[in-house]
Amino acid sequence: MALLPKALSRLIESFKKLPGVGPKTAQRLVFYLLHVPQEDLDQFGDRLKALKASTVLCSICKNVAEEDPCGICSDSGRDQSVVCVVEQPTDVLAIERTGKFKGLYHVLHGAIDPLNNIGPDEIYISDLIKRVNASTHQRVNEIILATNPNMEGEATAMYIQKQLSAISHQSSDKPKVTRLAHGLPMGADIEYADDVTLSRALDGRREF
Amino acid sequence: MALLPKALSRLIESFKKLPGVGPKTAQRLVFYLLHVPQEDLDQFGDRLKALKASTVLCSICKNVAEEDPCGICSDSGRDQSVVCVVEQPTDVLAIERTGKFKGLYHVLHGAIDPLNNIGPDEIYISDLIKRVNASTHQRVNEIILATNPNMEGEATAMYIQKQLSAISHQSSDKPKVTRLAHGLPMGADIEYADDVTLSRALDGRREF
Repeated sequence: MALLPKALSRLIESFKKLPGVGPKTAQRLVFYLLHVPQEDLDQFGDRLKALKASTVLCSICKNVAEEDPCGICSDSGRDQSVVCVVEQPTDVLAIERTGKFKGLYHVLHGAIDPLNNIGPDEIYISDLIKRVNASTHQRVNEIILATNPNMEGEATAMYIQKQLSAISHQSSDKPKVTRLAHGLPMGADIEYADDVTLSRALDGRREF
Repeated sequence: MALLPKALSRLIESFKKLPGVGPKTAQRLVFYLLHVPQEDLDQFGDRLKALKASTVLCSICKNVAEEDPCGICSDSGRDQSVVCVVEQPTDVLAIERTGKFKGLYHVLHGAIDPLNNIGPDEIYISDLIKRVNASTHQRVNEIILATNPNMEGEATAMYIQKQLSAISHQSSDKPKVTRLAHGLPMGADIEYADDVTLSRALDGRREF
């Protein structure tokens, strides 16, 4: 590829590092960008460079935010007694989009995944335990474990539940620990549902 | 999406402008970039900003290059008498990868596409005609029309051929105009080949 000008091949290298972007896509994007006005490129470049400098992790919920504490944690209108534990900041966005949840969040930034060397200490679990322990003025009544319904997410939820029950033994008022419901997604075909989902849907059946 | 820090939502906007990148992909990429070292982000940003400043269009073949004339046009070891006409710089890369072609190129930067308001004057056709006309010291013997085998590419090839035959009437030595062979791609199944490809393959059959 000595044919390509260095400016192009270098930018292709940068794009190739992004997840899901292969050599062909990277090349296509870079050739597309050749036709984009310089001011747009400058803007794009400046935004990339400023990304991390202008974001912080909220010291309470560990969500990505503009200020610390984040907008959700500092919103006195929200229910401080419910904490929804999620794996990623994007999960917060998804739950907020439903408009159904008015409590606070805790972002783990991952899930326990021994195959990829991610143990409980690599994600923000101890911060969650400390947070629940420390909530003296405003008690946490419920912790919703909203980790993903896969192996890593289930293991993480189980680990957190064990940690939380260890606290509860010491204090008199146990916080309730819940998990998101599992079952058939809306619009699904029962015929094509996988066995695990279908058996979870049966287990979780409710009176109509 | 007021929940997202501005630094993130702005970068998502920039990614969304790229072809084939939707809102979900843009979001995924930006959250991924949050975990990338700052120096990589700086490098990515600088490369984006430098992209256009450090590339030029070769004044002879209109390919994207580091210098003018480009490495191919200034390579005296290449056959100056054959010009391969392609739609995009990426087509040059594809043909070079075969190692089969040792002539020069002409990059049109598009194809005639009336539905999208791209006429012959929007792409580098007149430059090609001038180039063939002006080649006095080194005659162009053959022009290979390697535009894409689709409607726009075919229309472009036909238009260029017409323009070239208009020149040839004036001069005595006609340059040969050729087109890439059409037929079954290697590894294809005849059973699943489309009708047009199969009839082209029959038309273009050669003695074995």
